[in-house]
Amino acid sequence: MCDACGCDGTSSKVLEINQSLLAANNAMAEKNRIHIESLGAVAINMISSPGSGKTTLLEKTIDVLGEELRIGVIEGDIETERDAERIRAKGVPVVQLTTGGACHLDAALTHRGIHELESQLSGKKLDLLFIENVGNLVCPATFYLGEHRRLVIISVPEGPDKPAKYPRAFIGSHVFIISKTDLMPYFDFSIDYITDDALRLNPELRVMALSSTSGEGFESWISWLRSLCIRTV
Amino acid sequence: MCDACGCDGTSSKVLEINQSLLAANNAMAEKNRIHIESLGAVAINMISSPGSGKTTLLEKTIDVLGEELRIGVIEGDIETERDAERIRAKGVPVVQLTTGGACHLDAALTHRGIHELESQLSGKKLDLLFIENVGNLVCPATFYLGEHRRLVIISVPEGPDKPAKYPRAFIGSHVFIISKTDLMPYFDFSIDYITDDALRLNPELRVMALSSTSGEGFESWISWLRSLCIRTV
Repeated sequence: MCDACGCDGTSSKVLEINQSLLAANNAMAEKNRIHIESLGAVAINMISSPGSGKTTLLEKTIDVLGEELRIGVIEGDIETERDAERIRAKGVPVVQLTTGGACHLDAALTHRGIHELESQLSGKKLDLLFIENVGNLVCPATFYLGEHRRLVIISVPEGPDKPAKYPRAFIGSHVFIISKTDLMPYFDFSIDYITDDALRLNPELRVMALSSTSGEGFESWISWLRSLCIRTV
Repeated sequence: MCDACGCDGTSSKVLEINQSLLAANNAMAEKNRIHIESLGAVAINMISSPGSGKTTLLEKTIDVLGEELRIGVIEGDIETERDAERIRAKGVPVVQLTTGGACHLDAALTHRGIHELESQLSGKKLDLLFIENVGNLVCPATFYLGEHRRLVIISVPEGPDKPAKYPRAFIGSHVFIISKTDLMPYFDFSIDYITDDALRLNPELRVMALSSTSGEGFESWISWLRSLCIRTV
């Protein structure tokens, strides 16, 4: 390493503080999980880059399952209430969390979101709680929020090389959704290639390819959500 | 705030350490800038989400300007050498930095990249140094690397609501590129809307809409790069 640099990027002091912050986060996340279960819900933490279609996936999911299952949503964004407004228009309980600059949700902020959501329920229960994380394929993968399942989404326009370049989000997830498959004709994108790459990182990953616009592949996603509620609640 | 939570997410101790890390980063970045200028180059820090077309933009830019200007590239990724291999195939000096998990380049890692790049130059000079940051619209916006210009890219498939949701990347940039405009027919995307939103955050932002695939709008980008080299070197 060069003299002018003289730094490895992570000192042991910083590393120690990071570890202690993560431990505190995980302890709070465990409380969140118990809290979520007391509401009757299975929670899904949704992780992806900005613009991969998380909110649209939620809108369409509520269209299909909104009468059959009691759905609640926690929206995480750095700024704006826009995503919560879109979900509110679908008539389900929703809370917008804004991180004010932070690049991910953490368990403490999620905890406040759960309390706010509970106050909207007036004693009623939920079946499914979706937590839409900040649009960021990197940092949210490090923070457990108390969810039962973690979902990573890559949209077709992002390209098929993402699992190898952003491995942590795939290693820590239960489900991998390839979204916007209606755009396949306009991109050089191979579902087999990205699936193989993702499964190499995490052989237990359940992979689904779907389009919220055309509805293609949506049935597998809906069936999985139904099975999740039957099995866990 | 609820009793079980008892935490604002950022304690004053953590804030203090963050500020001291940022100050150390900025001091190193100033050294980088001097180092880059000693190589004769103007440096551009490229920030965007994964899959917005940073590497493709670089490939096409080298195709157009590679004979006229001496171009060097530092590639930042969490994992893999894939982007550097694509640039190397174009015959320009390139260094791949892998952050091993970190969500952004910092000045110390960039510093090592500049040294490695310099060793490839064998005493020759550069006109332009592109630093392709980790695919992440959030965290890289906080870290000055020593660049002369900062570039934020949003591709058409990501949607037009990104400036308001990810303001810091726009506030801190000089140029905003709307990429993949050849896909406009397939998306509900308004260039006027996203431009207005971005200019509200940063009225001095230079906005360019282009497609690396069709070449549409590419001339403005190339002219801007040329003017940058004439003005600064």
